[in-house]
Amino acid sequence: MKAPAESTRHDDSQIAPCYAVIFESQLAGDCDYDTTASAMVALAQTQPGFLSVSSARSADGFGITISYWSSLEAVRAFRALADHRAAQALGRSRFYIRYRLCVAEVKYEREFDRSEAPGAP
Amino acid sequence: MKAPAESTRHDDSQIAPCYAVIFESQLAGDCDYDTTASAMVALAQTQPGFLSVSSARSADGFGITISYWSSLEAVRAFRALADHRAAQALGRSRFYIRYRLCVAEVKYEREFDRSEAPGAP
Repeated sequence: MKAPAESTRHDDSQIAPCYAVIFESQLAGDCDYDTTASAMVALAQTQPGFLSVSSARSADGFGITISYWSSLEAVRAFRALADHRAAQALGRSRFYIRYRLCVAEVKYEREFDRSEAPGAP
Repeated sequence: MKAPAESTRHDDSQIAPCYAVIFESQLAGDCDYDTTASAMVALAQTQPGFLSVSSARSADGFGITISYWSSLEAVRAFRALADHRAAQALGRSRFYIRYRLCVAEVKYEREFDRSEAPGAP
């Protein structure tokens, strides 16, 4: 069977501005983490410039959450919100053994969905 | 307890060039996936410009893998390797229900490690 093809949504010349906030973290195991994490995702979703969020966490407690934003100003504004700053402090004192946060500008993007590929049922 | 502080390793003016390849995927459940994925990580680690890789996958099969590279040329060269292209085709035909691949330029980065924070034992 021939593999279905990817579709490219953007190239460098036409992409709308998009910034990825990459948050990699190792949990310490505090049981209040899920409540705070869910509240921060819900808060992000109400903010100007928020585009989407994805999250995965392995059984060993290592996780990656990526939120996508339309501008660096939107990233900074979310970071500065009082409720978010309180959650960040909780993160450092209770939730995370370590984390790494990167802010990156999306240069291009490709998507693949098997159900939309040529030959899909 | 005061939360330990983050350390900022880079700002926009001093960061070395760094590109993040963000790969978000939903697995279909093919048992050969782990072997191919491990082989691709091992291959990436031998390539010029490779910096690091992080990966997390939730129990529902949704995962995020991020590899970091020193140039877009290094990203393109890895993408074009024959073994990698074969793995990409397997991914589309067998491993993934859907995926999204973003290439992004890192603008700044912060890290936190509790064991290095002020007041750590």
